[in-house]
Amino acid sequence: MRKFLDENFLLQTKTAQQLYHDFAKQMPVIDYHNHLPPQQIADDICFENITQAWLYGDHYKWRAMRTNGIDESYCTGGRNDYEKFEAWASTVPYTLRNPLYHWTHLELQRYFNVHDILSPATAKSIYEDCSTKLRTRDFSVHNLLKKMKVDFLCTTDDPTDTLLHHKKIAGNGFEIKVLPTFRPDKATQVNNPDVFNEWVNKLQEACNISISTFDHYFEALQNRHDYFAEMGCLVADHGLENMIAEECTYKELQLIFSKIRAGKELNNGEQLMFASGMLREFAKMNDAKGWVQQFHIGAIRNNNKRKLLELGADTGWDSIGNSVDAKALAKFLGSLDAENKLAKTILYNLNPADNAMMATMAGNFNDGSYPGRIQWGSAWWFLDQKYGMEQQLQTLSNMGLLGRFVGMLTDSRSFLSYPRHEYFRRILCNLFGSDIEDGMLPHDIEWTGKLIQDICYNNAKQYFAKSL
Amino acid sequence: MRKFLDENFLLQTKTAQQLYHDFAKQMPVIDYHNHLPPQQIADDICFENITQAWLYGDHYKWRAMRTNGIDESYCTGGRNDYEKFEAWASTVPYTLRNPLYHWTHLELQRYFNVHDILSPATAKSIYEDCSTKLRTRDFSVHNLLKKMKVDFLCTTDDPTDTLLHHKKIAGNGFEIKVLPTFRPDKATQVNNPDVFNEWVNKLQEACNISISTFDHYFEALQNRHDYFAEMGCLVADHGLENMIAEECTYKELQLIFSKIRAGKELNNGEQLMFASGMLREFAKMNDAKGWVQQFHIGAIRNNNKRKLLELGADTGWDSIGNSVDAKALAKFLGSLDAENKLAKTILYNLNPADNAMMATMAGNFNDGSYPGRIQWGSAWWFLDQKYGMEQQLQTLSNMGLLGRFVGMLTDSRSFLSYPRHEYFRRILCNLFGSDIEDGMLPHDIEWTGKLIQDICYNNAKQYFAKSL
Amino acid sequence: MRKFLDENFLLQTKTAQQLYHDFAKQMPVIDYHNHLPPQQIADDICFENITQAWLYGDHYKWRAMRTNGIDESYCTGGRNDYEKFEAWASTVPYTLRNPLYHWTHLELQRYFNVHDILSPATAKSIYEDCSTKLRTRDFSVHNLLKKMKVDFLCTTDDPTDTLLHHKKIAGNGFEIKVLPTFRPDKATQVNNPDVFNEWVNKLQEACNISISTFDHYFEALQNRHDYFAEMGCLVADHGLENMIAEECTYKELQLIFSKIRAGKELNNGEQLMFASGMLREFAKMNDAKGWVQQFHIGAIRNNNKRKLLELGADTGWDSIGNSVDAKALAKFLGSLDAENKLAKTILYNLNPADNAMMATMAGNFNDGSYPGRIQWGSAWWFLDQKYGMEQQLQTLSNMGLLGRFVGMLTDSRSFLSYPRHEYFRRILCNLFGSDIEDGMLPHDIEWTGKLIQDICYNNAKQYFAKSL
Repeated sequence: MRKFLDENFLLQTKTAQQLYHDFAKQMPVIDYHNHLPPQQIADDICFENITQAWLYGDHYKWRAMRTNGIDESYCTGGRNDYEKFEAWASTVPYTLRNPLYHWTHLELQRYFNVHDILSPATAKSIYEDCSTKLRTRDFSVHNLLKKMKVDFLCTTDDPTDTLLHHKKIAGNGFEIKVLPTFRPDKATQVNNPDVFNEWVNKLQEACNISISTFDHYFEALQNRHDYFAEMGCLVADHGLENMIAEECTYKELQLIFSKIRAGKELNNGEQLMFASGMLREFAKMNDAKGWVQQFHIGAIRNNNKRKLLELGADTGWDSIGNSVDAKALAKFLGSLDAENKLAKTILYNLNPADNAMMATMAGNFNDGSYPGRIQWGSAWWFLDQKYGMEQQLQTLSNMGLLGRFVGMLTDSRSFLSYPRHEYFRRILCNLFGSDIEDGMLPHDIEWTGKLIQDICYNNAKQYFAKSL
Repeated sequence: MRKFLDENFLLQTKTAQQLYHDFAKQMPVIDYHNHLPPQQIADDICFENITQAWLYGDHYKWRAMRTNGIDESYCTGGRNDYEKFEAWASTVPYTLRNPLYHWTHLELQRYFNVHDILSPATAKSIYEDCSTKLRTRDFSVHNLLKKMKVDFLCTTDDPTDTLLHHKKIAGNGFEIKVLPTFRPDKATQVNNPDVFNEWVNKLQEACNISISTFDHYFEALQNRHDYFAEMGCLVADHGLENMIAEECTYKELQLIFSKIRAGKELNNGEQLMFASGMLREFAKMNDAKGWVQQFHIGAIRNNNKRKLLELGADTGWDSIGNSVDAKALAKFLGSLDAENKLAKTILYNLNPADNAMMATMAGNFNDGSYPGRIQWGSAWWFLDQKYGMEQQLQTLSNMGLLGRFVGMLTDSRSFLSYPRHEYFRRILCNLFGSDIEDGMLPHDIEWTGKLIQDICYNNAKQYFAKSL
Repeated sequence: MRKFLDENFLLQTKTAQQLYHDFAKQMPVIDYHNHLPPQQIADDICFENITQAWLYGDHYKWRAMRTNGIDESYCTGGRNDYEKFEAWASTVPYTLRNPLYHWTHLELQRYFNVHDILSPATAKSIYEDCSTKLRTRDFSVHNLLKKMKVDFLCTTDDPTDTLLHHKKIAGNGFEIKVLPTFRPDKATQVNNPDVFNEWVNKLQEACNISISTFDHYFEALQNRHDYFAEMGCLVADHGLENMIAEECTYKELQLIFSKIRAGKELNNGEQLMFASGMLREFAKMNDAKGWVQQFHIGAIRNNNKRKLLELGADTGWDSIGNSVDAKALAKFLGSLDAENKLAKTILYNLNPADNAMMATMAGNFNDGSYPGRIQWGSAWWFLDQKYGMEQQLQTLSNMGLLGRFVGMLTDSRSFLSYPRHEYFRRILCNLFGSDIEDGMLPHDIEWTGKLIQDICYNNAKQYFAKSL
């Protein structure tokens, strides 16, 4: 009987323990994709209480609470912070075997040194203990990040963002680099003329270019891409329901843009062509800058229209879609590669049924020019749990080179999510440890330890540094 | 070396054994979806021999026998009951690692106290022993169900069914509730005008409504839905090759119905529209009644046309189709939800590649109104085996709340299938037990035991009771 | 701590060890599908060095090297053999957890009695040791095959092949039967008139039939099919991006053939129809001969167009596509079955998300006429590794009859790949061994050992022999 969440949590063999404690644990963290709010970092805020740090904006927890029969007023609604925390505490015992259970208790331990199990019985004392701590400077968001040994992190930002918070962070000497990520999804989403044009107007303002034609539009986006680069951006990110690779000439981009800019609805074909064409243009910009580009493919969003209207996007009504279109993905990557304009690329799928397809697709474009040039990314969103990560690591091991993997990211909106890197490392060490003890791998701790350190930190360091 | 099928079968840790023996084992059974023949329950029949109880109607066994090279005459054909049993006994040793091997020996133990392994060598004695027992009143179907501690069960019934057997069962004071399930698949299947109209004629008779227009049709179906409710029905079930969600107005339903009622072929578009529209109407009826509705999605049927002609449907020529259409499913559930007409719903997929998609889809419509309102159902049909169940439980654990799961059902045509509930419970306890012993969960037997009891019985009890 | 790659490699229980050493190990090998070059067997060549035997033509290794950042000149390019070997040796330490790591060291042990781990430090000595051995007659390709106890093997051959090498092999008394496989993919690929007509011209020459109409074309193909049969062929193989089952009459085949034979481009519909129609014709020929037919479905090829132009096909730019079309597969097999023209068939999928679908599809056409008549084939290509094989064996166990499985094949271009049979056998024995020790199966070593021997050898022996 092993103790829950002790120092050897998830490390089922002596060798796994050795690999984790002697090699993985000490490595700094590169969090190359997350959704942290730059303003809170710029202002180095302290949270007033654990509800603000934990439950504001966390749709994972909201989904669990709703499935547990908790009313919306305790999730996104008007209940006070302690009531919300209590509702969460009453849900936690029902999350056994869900990653939330592990995350919750890892976060309580690592940030707050709280070793109790969260439940209605412990809710009050944990709330007070953590909240008191959070109000001290030791728990400002800067200090939370430093406690986790973060080396650098990349937020996720719209091209229209001024990046003033990033500028402020860079200016005030914070030792952790906080870089923006260029995420131009809205530049390609043309299903609704009003929404699109509103965004184009915002873009106009952001770069002081009046946008009436596609040429202006393209110039404005290039302008923002350049500006992001100036502000230290190394990474682009593209979120897609499915991969698309329709042919679309520059002329056609111009015509379609004129139509929607004039407020007219586009048909499905036009929408696909425009989105495909823009995606290709962005990919070329990314390559020209030497950035890394990420493609997050396969979420279907806002499935619950009633709740979308009530609460807005990103409140927990998204889920996993059907398979990513493999031929479109091959065509998209192949057409860039043929022009020698394929940037370093990380591919993420949300449906685990696509794991093998995605892992092998990456291999098609690894041409020897740089180790691990095209990556199949870490288990994402719903897959970001022990079982999902193990499946990703197994498939990557078998169909690619695990030793060249750039590893983990939080993808989180919360400053308290960094133990997910630790979680990943323990799982990684556990796999290698079992393999060694089972005679599946040689008992070569030094080399295995080196690969683990590479996956935890060195590979990403080199991969993103080379983007500069 | 552990003994095959002893009391700790499938329970690989002490903790798993404790959880099973102290918590799971004692719970009664709710079998909310099966295909038992109501007449046999109404008449409380005894089987003449084990072949009749085991091999008549069991396409799982037939498929295994055919794959083993056994001639059809021993499956559905004219061989005598003992010859059929011998053929099955000769196949059993080839089913090692197939769930049939476990089911077979569990059923021999639990119902007949037979601990031998079935093979040609033991065929004769087992046949005689079991058949002799089956002919006694102790082994009438009532007593078989009571032996398994069944609390209530739901059969699967066509809207044209008179439910006279259910009435008889309710009337004769049988202590196990035997409820019908409203399964109107035939009301939506309009690919063949003759088949459809024949069914509509049957519906006419069942409710004494002359059906010449869609209005009559709708009235007749509503009438049957009401009648099923009167007869205690709590549950609807819908079997679909894929999810469909075409738009179809009431006007269009009327036109399409007129066309097919006049004996004309419908094109594919019309078939899809009609089926989609009807499915939505049934869903609204289900909601109005406060029923639970089930969707079994993804079987492709009658793939072997030669055998379909020879033997008819449901004789073992069905298999797993491609993925369920996630967007259609989101659209279907979302449109009902938007009108506040989404009944409690259980979603089942047959292709395990859809597990993650389905588990997360359920989450989109869990709005906090009731714990586990939308369920992702238990591993179904070909997935109803240890590996399939473990995958379902892993995915559900990670992407939903396992603790709110309504658990297992037999989905079986056989009165001897109830040990599948035991099988499920052992697997469930084994997962929790390993997690606890590995330090993945706290060593909290009381709480874990409570969740297990909820999953085995209490959740379903509450979920279906609330349907009343 | 178990030793890497000792005699009990992959055998995690005593029972697994017993099953492997007492039952599986001794069985001969039937390698019913591979890509060995017949000429090298006819000439019984010796390789000059290990690079020629190992790295020439092995796109698995090239992909790993490229992903490791190794320049193309070391893969398919102009570097000398030792430089290439060194580059491979520098990649091997990065292949931990990839099947290449196991294959590499198994092959070094089994053929060369080399027990060192390959790395830059050992590259020179291993290169010299193995190369020296390879230049001796003891390591001629005949002797390499004999060392592996190969009983018979089937190469993969184009219908236009003269099979002169096969004739020579048969003539010179080599005790291992080396049979051709009829693989007419090019006869169905009509997307490019020039490529197709060039192939038809080659076919003309091969059979001395002038081909201007479809009737001639059909006659020529039938002629080659007959010729292959005369040369001992027992097996056909068909490689498909996806399964297709469009209707196409003989008249339509004639018209489409005339069009492309005249050098005109076919539209997509015509291409699909022609390919479907031809596939059906080949299937009928296979059935008439009593051959086994294989369908390898789901690879998407030549995704990297730049590299295709540079290096040609089959150089490591293929990957896993989306799901196999289940309904098309059912239609294709069903239409043959309905005419009683469905040959013994082995179905292979490349996307593991299709495992369950494929396993159950096979079951639809197992009609009792012969044990395991329709097989779901062994884990293929990217799936040919421990995790992939275990998944295949689990799914096959649960959805079919593992005991009737025809087992493993190398699918390899290399004479050094035969330890993959051993690898498979160890994995197979390990599964049974664990099940027995866990009480999941009875402790019946004799019967389990018999089933294992059947899967390793006897089933294939009977299955392919019956094709004669």
